[in-house]
Amino acid sequence: MSEMTNEKVSESYIEGRNPVIEAFRSGKTIDKLYILDGANDGPIMTIKREAKKHDTYVKYVSKERLDQMSQTGTHQGVIACTAAYEYSEMEDIFELAEKKGEAPFVYILDNIEDPHNLGAIIRTANLSGAHGVIIPKNRAVGLTSTVARTSAGALNYTPVVRVTNISKTIEELKKKGMWFVCADMDGEIMYNLDLTGSIGLVIGNEGEGVSRLVRENCDYIASIPMKGDIDSLNASVAAGVLGFEIVRQRLHKK
Amino acid sequence: MSEMTNEKVSESYIEGRNPVIEAFRSGKTIDKLYILDGANDGPIMTIKREAKKHDTYVKYVSKERLDQMSQTGTHQGVIACTAAYEYSEMEDIFELAEKKGEAPFVYILDNIEDPHNLGAIIRTANLSGAHGVIIPKNRAVGLTSTVARTSAGALNYTPVVRVTNISKTIEELKKKGMWFVCADMDGEIMYNLDLTGSIGLVIGNEGEGVSRLVRENCDYIASIPMKGDIDSLNASVAAGVLGFEIVRQRLHKK
Repeated sequence: MSEMTNEKVSESYIEGRNPVIEAFRSGKTIDKLYILDGANDGPIMTIKREAKKHDTYVKYVSKERLDQMSQTGTHQGVIACTAAYEYSEMEDIFELAEKKGEAPFVYILDNIEDPHNLGAIIRTANLSGAHGVIIPKNRAVGLTSTVARTSAGALNYTPVVRVTNISKTIEELKKKGMWFVCADMDGEIMYNLDLTGSIGLVIGNEGEGVSRLVRENCDYIASIPMKGDIDSLNASVAAGVLGFEIVRQRLHKK
Repeated sequence: MSEMTNEKVSESYIEGRNPVIEAFRSGKTIDKLYILDGANDGPIMTIKREAKKHDTYVKYVSKERLDQMSQTGTHQGVIACTAAYEYSEMEDIFELAEKKGEAPFVYILDNIEDPHNLGAIIRTANLSGAHGVIIPKNRAVGLTSTVARTSAGALNYTPVVRVTNISKTIEELKKKGMWFVCADMDGEIMYNLDLTGSIGLVIGNEGEGVSRLVRENCDYIASIPMKGDIDSLNASVAAGVLGFEIVRQRLHKK
C-alpha cells in the first residue's frame, strides 16, 4: 500500500476528442464521460469503445449542456470528468486489517449517487474502524473533490476500491471467509443478528435500496427498528446506525 | 396542534425596504435578512430594529452579492428570505408524546448550519420516534425548501420548534422532568449511560460542537466510540447513531 491511501490527483474536465482518447490510453481514471446525444462519428465511436473497455459511466447530453459545462469552449461533443483521488486496490483493505490485527470490516456501497452521502459514509467508515469502502464503477459517484471535502480527511486513511460488479465481488470475498449483511427494511432487526467477525456491510442506492442480485448474495438482511411516519433514513445516516451497531457488537464480544 | 405539523408556506425572497418592513409587521417568519454592508439610513435602521425585535439572523453583504441574489433587480440594499414551513409550538411536542403514550424524546440542535444536515436530522428524529426537534432562532439554518426536501416528508409529521435561547429552554424543560444528554467526544461512552426516560438529545454545531453554556446545562455527556484517524462524524450521522442508541435502550428496557 502506498503511504497515503487514495492518493490525491487533480480533478478536472478533459474536453475534446483527442484529449479524451489520450486520457483513456494514458490510464487516467475517468469518472464520468459526457457525450453529445446522437454523435456517432469515428472518434466518438473510439471514445465509446474505450469507455466500454474501462467500464466508464457515460451520459448522453444535449449540446446546450456541454456548452454550459465547457471551460475551454471547444468540447467537440465530449467532456470527460477525471477523479480527484486515485482508487486503492482490494489488497490494501486486507493489508490494513492485518496490520491492525482485526477481522476485516468493509462498507460496500451498491450505487450511492450523492457525493455528500459517499463522503459522509467514507468518514463514518473510518470512524467505525472499517478497513475500506467498496464502490461500483458504473453509475455511482466516484471520488470527486466534493466527496473528498465531505469525507473530512477520511479519504487519506480509508482505502476506497472500485469494482466492476458488486455481486461478483461479494462472491469472491465470501471465499476469503467474509460474511455480508445488507440493509433493508424487511430484514431482521439488527440487534438480533450476530454482526461480529469478518463482515461486509452493504448499503443500497438512495432511492432504490440494495439491488436484487446483491441482496440475494448477502448472508443476512438487517433492518433498523423504525418508529416513524416516513419511509427510510438518509443513506449515510443508515450506514452510520448500522456501522456503529457492528462497533457495539464487536466491543461487547471482547 | 394543527392537523399538519410545521405547515407549509411558500418560501420566497422579499426585496426592497418597504416590502421587508411590511413583512416584519405582518408577522411573516423571516429566516434570514441580507443587508447591504454599511447601509444605515432611516428605513434600513427600521429594518434592523425589527430584525432585532424578532431575533432574525442578519447577514451584511456586498452590493454584488445582493445583485446576484435579487430576482426583481430592485432590492434597495435589503433582501429577506422567508421560511418554507411555519414552526410548531413547544406544546405540540408534548401533546404528540402524550397522544402516543410515550415519554417525551426530542432532538435539540445547537446551531446546525447546513440545511442538508437539518433535513436529515428531522428525518432521523421522525424515524427514531422522537416527538420533536428544537432549533435556535439565531445563526442556525431554518425550515427552508432544501431542509423540507432533505427531510423526505418528515417535516409534515415531526414538530420543529424555534426558541430564542437553547440553554434557557433546557432549563425550562428540566422542570418538566426531562433529562438532557449532549454529544461530545470526551463524554462517557453512550452504552454506559441510561438514555431511557424523558430525554433531550443535544447535537452541536458542525464545526464547533455543543456550546459551553448548553453543555454545562446537560445532565450527561455521551460519546460515540471512535476507532478511526479523523476527528468526528458528520453531525447528522452522529445524531442518527446516538438517536438509535436511545431507541435500542428504550426497546430493551421494555
